[in-house]
Amino acid sequence: MRNSLLILCLSLLAFTSSAQIADSIMAKKIADEILTNGQAYENLRHLTKKIGPRLAGSTGMVKSEKWGLEMMQQAGADKSWLQQCMVPYWVRGGKDVAEYSIDNANGLRSADVIALGNSIGGKAKGKLIMVSSFEELDKRKDEVKGKVVFFNYKFNPTFTKTFMAYSDAVKYRGGGPSAAAKYGAVGAVIRSMSHGDNNHPHTGGTRYDEAYPKIPAVAIGLKDADLLADLIAAGKGLYMSIATHGYFKPDTIGHNVIGELRGTEFPDEIITIGGHLDSWDNCEGAHDDGAGCVQTIEILRAFKALDYKPKRTIRFVLFANEENGLRGGTKYAQEAKEKGEKHVFALESDAGGFTPRGFGFTVSKEQFEKIKNWQSVLAPYGGSELVMGGGGADIGPLNQTFGTPVAGLSPDSQRYFDLHHARNDTFEAVNKRELELGAVNMAILVYLVDKYGL
Amino acid sequence: MRNSLLILCLSLLAFTSSAQIADSIMAKKIADEILTNGQAYENLRHLTKKIGPRLAGSTGMVKSEKWGLEMMQQAGADKSWLQQCMVPYWVRGGKDVAEYSIDNANGLRSADVIALGNSIGGKAKGKLIMVSSFEELDKRKDEVKGKVVFFNYKFNPTFTKTFMAYSDAVKYRGGGPSAAAKYGAVGAVIRSMSHGDNNHPHTGGTRYDEAYPKIPAVAIGLKDADLLADLIAAGKGLYMSIATHGYFKPDTIGHNVIGELRGTEFPDEIITIGGHLDSWDNCEGAHDDGAGCVQTIEILRAFKALDYKPKRTIRFVLFANEENGLRGGTKYAQEAKEKGEKHVFALESDAGGFTPRGFGFTVSKEQFEKIKNWQSVLAPYGGSELVMGGGGADIGPLNQTFGTPVAGLSPDSQRYFDLHHARNDTFEAVNKRELELGAVNMAILVYLVDKYGL
Repeated sequence: MRNSLLILCLSLLAFTSSAQIADSIMAKKIADEILTNGQAYENLRHLTKKIGPRLAGSTGMVKSEKWGLEMMQQAGADKSWLQQCMVPYWVRGGKDVAEYSIDNANGLRSADVIALGNSIGGKAKGKLIMVSSFEELDKRKDEVKGKVVFFNYKFNPTFTKTFMAYSDAVKYRGGGPSAAAKYGAVGAVIRSMSHGDNNHPHTGGTRYDEAYPKIPAVAIGLKDADLLADLIAAGKGLYMSIATHGYFKPDTIGHNVIGELRGTEFPDEIITIGGHLDSWDNCEGAHDDGAGCVQTIEILRAFKALDYKPKRTIRFVLFANEENGLRGGTKYAQEAKEKGEKHVFALESDAGGFTPRGFGFTVSKEQFEKIKNWQSVLAPYGGSELVMGGGGADIGPLNQTFGTPVAGLSPDSQRYFDLHHARNDTFEAVNKRELELGAVNMAILVYLVDKYGL
Repeated sequence: MRNSLLILCLSLLAFTSSAQIADSIMAKKIADEILTNGQAYENLRHLTKKIGPRLAGSTGMVKSEKWGLEMMQQAGADKSWLQQCMVPYWVRGGKDVAEYSIDNANGLRSADVIALGNSIGGKAKGKLIMVSSFEELDKRKDEVKGKVVFFNYKFNPTFTKTFMAYSDAVKYRGGGPSAAAKYGAVGAVIRSMSHGDNNHPHTGGTRYDEAYPKIPAVAIGLKDADLLADLIAAGKGLYMSIATHGYFKPDTIGHNVIGELRGTEFPDEIITIGGHLDSWDNCEGAHDDGAGCVQTIEILRAFKALDYKPKRTIRFVLFANEENGLRGGTKYAQEAKEKGEKHVFALESDAGGFTPRGFGFTVSKEQFEKIKNWQSVLAPYGGSELVMGGGGADIGPLNQTFGTPVAGLSPDSQRYFDLHHARNDTFEAVNKRELELGAVNMAILVYLVDKYGL
């Protein structure tokens, strides 16, 4: 260890300032601690395998909050607490089913579907009409009444960063059901937000427009979606029946889980690191966002293990209810405002526990120029792609309330939408070192912000 | 498509030359073609699932050569052929077994092991002595006679790039058995070259020193290795018996599979792109190196689909026998020398089909300066980490023979040693888009070398 630090030190001497050398040495200490003694992977195993799904309101939510608080204490927080907030409580209510017949022939085939989050329970039956866009739906509006609309808009494979394909397509999940209901559709089937080589349907929140009837809405696996499209292209008439069971219970009590390291020089300046603790009900939520939670806890653990005493107060937060309400992030900013807190930076990991590539920042130009100077400190650990634009859903309210500079970890995105909101978002899909390196880069960035401010 | 090209074009105008814009437009065309119409993933499915393991000499080797030639023809090579070379023919010969007892008690436990490649068949039985290094072995040389030596040298987790941990540890696989035999050991057990969270043993070539007896040698899975270490640390006496069955048949005929696109301006200047077609016998060889083979074929397919007419002659090569002889790469360079060919650049993909991060180059300083100018063209596709040092085993002989500049694709390395040379190196461990993006970056680099020379 000492030798490798020495070599690092000497090799850096040639082209960096002494401050950068000190930062690189601290970065190496952080990395060595996390890569050698890291607990993130075993913590994720517990969260996914022993607790499992943890949608807002569920028993999994309650168990995970209790676990999270214990983890903050174990990791060495100076102080840890639960911050209460009311959360929505949507339940799936049963097994979602879609069956179809071809040209009214006997015999039903079943498709692999899952109701969209927040959707109602109900039954819908009718001829299936496939559209590839809202524009096509509008053109064919006279055909829609009494039918089930199948939105078959595909992920665009030419976006190198897959979140762009998601942003491009997700409007059909959010707005497709009501767009179809507007023209009299009785049900909606949405092509899953994925490009994975499997048939797992991907859930995720939808939003009904109160102006139109609420209709049952499901996501369908890609192989079934392609099969339906092929049948329709071959001139077959498809009749689809859908059964869903979703409903809302009254709002219930949920919590943000918070651990804190008190700042030694500027204790009133708060840096927040976080992920969200809730997950959809149909999966272990390993990448989304168990990864962000265990990385957050890991950074606390590593800072304590290295006896790092931050200048500023660092809060480690597992946010409640990101998936279908954002009540945790909203509450966090609201209470901060009420208490007159000063939030100087916030960082979220909510893009999967994959190998880190960099960070996206919502900061001023001057702040970004300062941040770019840290690129060489991050580079050895893979997180050196620093770009403007980014943050995280849960820290968005901080940015909106205070103008707090925010950032999001940008892991490699190629595998994320193979499993996002689907049953295969499991612990097994996470690689230990990729997960740890995400925590390494986040910890280094937070160390730099704490040391230099923004 | 046209819109996205236009936007790309306009956004680049601000800070790049017109040549760079033209290159970025061509890069986008290459990427769109591969990400939209790519065949690499389905070709890999065939190679791994229909053909499977393909160690030099095996029937899998013969089948894969036939398939490779057909692929070159289908992908549109101007010319394709098999280049014959003699290859070693090692066979495992049976199921490798290791069993141990504790403190001579009744009852044997079995450990998950696999004989090292090129190792002999035989039985060995003796007390197990664990060492963590060659230095410890030397110190304890008087204890070794008649025993089975267990080299328990661990991957160093603090190397961010895992190939450095492999380079650091692999000497025990290569030289451990003979180092133990030197002091009278009857067998050797090597901790697998891995840091994976599983118990799969990882094979790979070993080299006997002819000065000492050849002893049976196996790799052991990490969980079993840790269990043995724990037992020894607890003061238990372990007795190990090993049975292996490996032997060499006479050398046999193998082939490099070659496809060619003839250059339009400088047909005598040859650029080589390749991977190796052989794999170890215990796995599908999906990442090692099916990925490199299907990427090589994909680049040919994409160039033809785009009607790209290279200035220089481009050879697409699936090399024979990388794993235990390098006879394919050796033959390729030897014949090139005999024929007086001019090899101006060679690129290999043999580090897995993971998301690309960049390339490593063995080139002159002047050439590297030229290459670094291309960074912005590669960056949108993830392959912009350009470093000195690198290449590939199969193109090494070209570099040694002609001084040909060589490069190797550097994919993200975190997952590679979870599965390298182990039974879990399967098709399922490869992500379609990660594989394709490797091909995208390689194709762009070759396009640039072809256009500008080196």
